[in-house]
Amino acid sequence: MSLVPSVLAGDRLALARLLSLIENGTPEGLQNLSKLYHQTGKAHRVGITGAPGTGKSTLVNRLVQLLRAQADPPEIAIVAVDPSSPFTGGAILGDRIRMRDLAGDPGIFIRSMANRGALGGLARTTSSLVAAMDAAGFEMVFIETVGSGQAEVDVASAAHTVVVLDAPGMGDAIQALKAGLLEIADIVVVNKGDLPGAQTAAQALRSALELGSAVNQKDEVDGWEIPLLVTTASTGEGVTELASAIGDHRQFLQRSGEWTLRERARVEREIGAVLRERLAEKFISAQPDGLYEEAIRRVVAREISPGAVVEELIDRASEER
Amino acid sequence: MSLVPSVLAGDRLALARLLSLIENGTPEGLQNLSKLYHQTGKAHRVGITGAPGTGKSTLVNRLVQLLRAQADPPEIAIVAVDPSSPFTGGAILGDRIRMRDLAGDPGIFIRSMANRGALGGLARTTSSLVAAMDAAGFEMVFIETVGSGQAEVDVASAAHTVVVLDAPGMGDAIQALKAGLLEIADIVVVNKGDLPGAQTAAQALRSALELGSAVNQKDEVDGWEIPLLVTTASTGEGVTELASAIGDHRQFLQRSGEWTLRERARVEREIGAVLRERLAEKFISAQPDGLYEEAIRRVVAREISPGAVVEELIDRASEER
Repeated sequence: MSLVPSVLAGDRLALARLLSLIENGTPEGLQNLSKLYHQTGKAHRVGITGAPGTGKSTLVNRLVQLLRAQADPPEIAIVAVDPSSPFTGGAILGDRIRMRDLAGDPGIFIRSMANRGALGGLARTTSSLVAAMDAAGFEMVFIETVGSGQAEVDVASAAHTVVVLDAPGMGDAIQALKAGLLEIADIVVVNKGDLPGAQTAAQALRSALELGSAVNQKDEVDGWEIPLLVTTASTGEGVTELASAIGDHRQFLQRSGEWTLRERARVEREIGAVLRERLAEKFISAQPDGLYEEAIRRVVAREISPGAVVEELIDRASEER
Repeated sequence: MSLVPSVLAGDRLALARLLSLIENGTPEGLQNLSKLYHQTGKAHRVGITGAPGTGKSTLVNRLVQLLRAQADPPEIAIVAVDPSSPFTGGAILGDRIRMRDLAGDPGIFIRSMANRGALGGLARTTSSLVAAMDAAGFEMVFIETVGSGQAEVDVASAAHTVVVLDAPGMGDAIQALKAGLLEIADIVVVNKGDLPGAQTAAQALRSALELGSAVNQKDEVDGWEIPLLVTTASTGEGVTELASAIGDHRQFLQRSGEWTLRERARVEREIGAVLRERLAEKFISAQPDGLYEEAIRRVVAREISPGAVVEELIDRASEER
């Protein structure tokens, strides 16, 4: 039975079921997603990333409440790809906010990644979940990632708009993580603006951004000057300005043609990832009995390197055609 | 000109050059690595992972100094896969230790990952660097990763022995990250043992480990009870015990046959990763002019999903044979 009509009709339970099927890598999930794919492309994908402790979940909570309180509010979905997110079960280890402020609103849908993308990788699984939400009619999809690992940075950088979050007093080690994150930022936010050190943190980030733009000339190339905002998610201070900056960035992307460029780059990465998985699956299942096992055994025995044994397997398969 | 004889003869400059060639994904690097591969398999790969700020680099520094001060000391290589590591250039953002204590010792070799594995992924690139160090005769290779991202956890979990580091006062958000890390730990360390809260942190981890072993029965299955140690890397307190635990784990792995099982699992993942890359490269380059571009265009236009377009490309290629 196809879930497609129910998902398109706005049935949230059907959507939740589809997301589980996709996350578990079932053929049913992928078939349904294929059928829904022509309905995608409308959602604004907003990545929110930053080191643990910068207050990502609290800020998303505030931002979503604010956006929903507007006239003609967008329907909003949230995907949490963050092992420390309260959505993802990290909350069992501490008393954290549970986003229960958002729970009563039917225009909001929250999903955490329970399975960290074992089947095909974190980025691909997340992207498929987001595509299903997009097809289901959500106009904004927030993707929350912890932002201190390569896979998590890849997930965030696939968004249309990337918000990088910092907070004062995170310590030297975490400061150093930010250099990589700033490279993918469209909007930079210093959260916990009520803490001492917030202005110092903002000043340091401003310098880093100016240095970066002087070196890369990124802002001149694409015509977007990265705004630096200070927020206090716990009180809501500065969150209106953040909502405006996200809207401005969307308009910039569409006006400049950058929206299409980002979509194209993301699609190309996705096709490449699917192609790698499918080709390898087909190749391995077409191997004569025991040959792949023997290849592994020879590498374990150090008779041959992984690279050389793969060339050998590929050459043999081409000759046999 | 082959670098192989020089690397095997212990020439460190030749090794450094080879590592750069591997990191940049050059054919020369991969050819040299293939020739060296039969010399690998001797090094004890030790992953050290933990959240930023737990003191990984300081601890590795102490541990390596201590191991090198033993009678008949092992030759030791260190790979830092950590954007906040002082090895990796993160130090420019703060005044951090520079591992200069280790610099004068010819039995120690330090390498940071400058390039985050764009060519084939972080795990694969790191594994190739470690293989080259192994062939060059290093008896221990420490792999330092920040441990808060999926790719970084994958790198650490490919080691023979995984040391997971924690420290008191890391905050709730970072506490929550640990749940995932504990699953891959062979040894758990609370560093910064001189800070208030170290004993509390140790007690919490002990409970988490006992809970984990009650649920998973992991320690009973493989006969290794995960030790929980408290260290103060800045003074060296507890580092002797950590060195012993690492040695004990190596002996356990070899005695129980687990060493071979872990090698096999790692090799299987590596062959799979190489196979996926090579098959996709060959497939794309064999496509008729414009066909792959057209596939991308159709997905961007939402005419077809990434999964469906890949099936179409593969089916067409099979028919044309």
